[in-house]
Amino acid sequence: MRRTPVVRAGDGLWLKLEQLQHTGSFKPRGAFNRILAAGEGAAAGIVTASGGNAGLGAAHAARELGVPAEVFVPETAPEVKVRGLKALGAEVRQVGSIYREAFEAASERAAETGRLFCHAYDQPEVCAGQGTVGLELLEQVPEVDTVLLAVGGGGLLAGVAAALEGRARVVGVEPAGVPTLHRALAEGRPVDVSVESVAADALGASRIGAIAFDVAVRTGAGSVLVGDEAIIAARRHLWDHWRLAVEHGTAAALAALHTGAYVPAPGEKVAVVICGANTDPSDLHG
Amino acid sequence: MRRTPVVRAGDGLWLKLEQLQHTGSFKPRGAFNRILAAGEGAAAGIVTASGGNAGLGAAHAARELGVPAEVFVPETAPEVKVRGLKALGAEVRQVGSIYREAFEAASERAAETGRLFCHAYDQPEVCAGQGTVGLELLEQVPEVDTVLLAVGGGGLLAGVAAALEGRARVVGVEPAGVPTLHRALAEGRPVDVSVESVAADALGASRIGAIAFDVAVRTGAGSVLVGDEAIIAARRHLWDHWRLAVEHGTAAALAALHTGAYVPAPGEKVAVVICGANTDPSDLHG
Ligand SMILES: Cc1ncc(COP(=O)(O)O)c(C=O)c1O
Ligand SMILES: Cc1ncc(COP(=O)(O)O)c(C=O)c1O
Repeated sequence: MRRTPVVRAGDGLWLKLEQLQHTGSFKPRGAFNRILAAGEGAAAGIVTASGGNAGLGAAHAARELGVPAEVFVPETAPEVKVRGLKALGAEVRQVGSIYREAFEAASERAAETGRLFCHAYDQPEVCAGQGTVGLELLEQVPEVDTVLLAVGGGGLLAGVAAALEGRARVVGVEPAGVPTLHRALAEGRPVDVSVESVAADALGASRIGAIAFDVAVRTGAGSVLVGDEAIIAARRHLWDHWRLAVEHGTAAALAALHTGAYVPAPGEKVAVVICGANTDPSDLHG
Repeated sequence: MRRTPVVRAGDGLWLKLEQLQHTGSFKPRGAFNRILAAGEGAAAGIVTASGGNAGLGAAHAARELGVPAEVFVPETAPEVKVRGLKALGAEVRQVGSIYREAFEAASERAAETGRLFCHAYDQPEVCAGQGTVGLELLEQVPEVDTVLLAVGGGGLLAGVAAALEGRARVVGVEPAGVPTLHRALAEGRPVDVSVESVAADALGASRIGAIAFDVAVRTGAGSVLVGDEAIIAARRHLWDHWRLAVEHGTAAALAALHTGAYVPAPGEKVAVVICGANTDPSDLHG
């Protein structure tokens, strides 16, 4: 993995530039850890389901570790995503018309073949791998009080919150149109939510992972919501002021500061995880 | 100024991410230093000539220091550049059809008004300011042997080579179609060269600055050349492998490693300055 740098973005504010990670997001961290932890259990290869960053991360990790990867995506997956996965050496299987069908086909395939199933967020080794973002951050900014990060299925949140438990707190940021953790915390258990957001390609899980929910409850990691307009504005801000081209899901975390969805206390030291850059940057110019 | 981070890019290879600087390039460093060093001499404001990064850097520094800025650009300057300068609070004067005419108008204006003229590269304070890129790098990567950086008028090279003198060496990288330092070193004095390169918007000075030439000779900073195709490929590489959207001029320094224009010795520790990101990123996707 790359040890991604941190940049100071103001008084008591840092950005962890994890979009510089291999494949453009933090996802390979979890996949590496899942595959390494399985030892011989991954020898026959891995199977995953994701046309997005999780698929890219798993394909990358598998290739680096010398095991074959099969990635299931819906038939509707854009050609550019399929090409990206193939470029990383993965075999791509296009099954079903929605993500859930690809997911089920992948699970079956893993069961039939004995290949290792790599979940996009809801496996302990995957969460632990994502947590290394937090461990690095703690070395880089030991004084950090609070980490803001985007939540999809919650693998990143679970890993970082567990890694920083007792040393810093984590606040999850979700699009108002995909409030998986928010609703789960309100209802006391993971529930399905509708998925409507400009950031749905990365933060579009319809239900928070069981691990993330448990860790959030245990560590007190909260969730704040941001609207699509604020997400779009924060993405624009990151280009205009930092020349960072990031995806909408990534901009959500910063949007929480801009909108006041999260207001740091005086003197509170905050780090924002810039977690992915698999975006079409065409609209950023000018 | 922002203290820009460094990222490890391989065995004995680092990237200094100076494109994260305010205004998207290192240029404000030199402008800040020029204005601060002038003290009262800048009270009436500053004048500069550049529709590119030097203009943006000077406008930014002036605004931060609370002095008015007048920026001269040719009438042919693209609307987007004029807007960028105005957004930084500068007064923009469009004079003449080529850069040299705007430059002369700016010099005259400074002489008439007593405003401080800020050169894009050929003033000691400007070079010294750019040199802080090198001082930061030395703190971040104390073991560095060699710094690769792009050369236009040579302000960045002069500053960094002087700052690192006796501790690390600097190699300038130039487009083969704009070999200002290369030709000057060959002929023993600065000479005019033709300007033909995809990177001409940033590296398009037609003659190396006098200061840069002197410092290059004194410190032994060499120049290597890269073709436009290699520059374009290196820019693409920085997006594909790092999700860094940079301008062509910036990619030149990395291209020197990819082409073998510069071949590090075994064990040599090399840092590449990623110096600017004022680019239209539209062509990077897919
Ligand atoms: C860029 C980016 N950020 C955040 C997330 C959310 O991660 P998680 O599903 O672990 O909550 C994802 C998930 O795909 C992502 O791609
Ligand atoms: C991005 C970038 N890199 C490099 C240079 C070259 O700088 P110098 O003129 O100091 O050699 C410039 C000059 O405008 C630039 O904008």
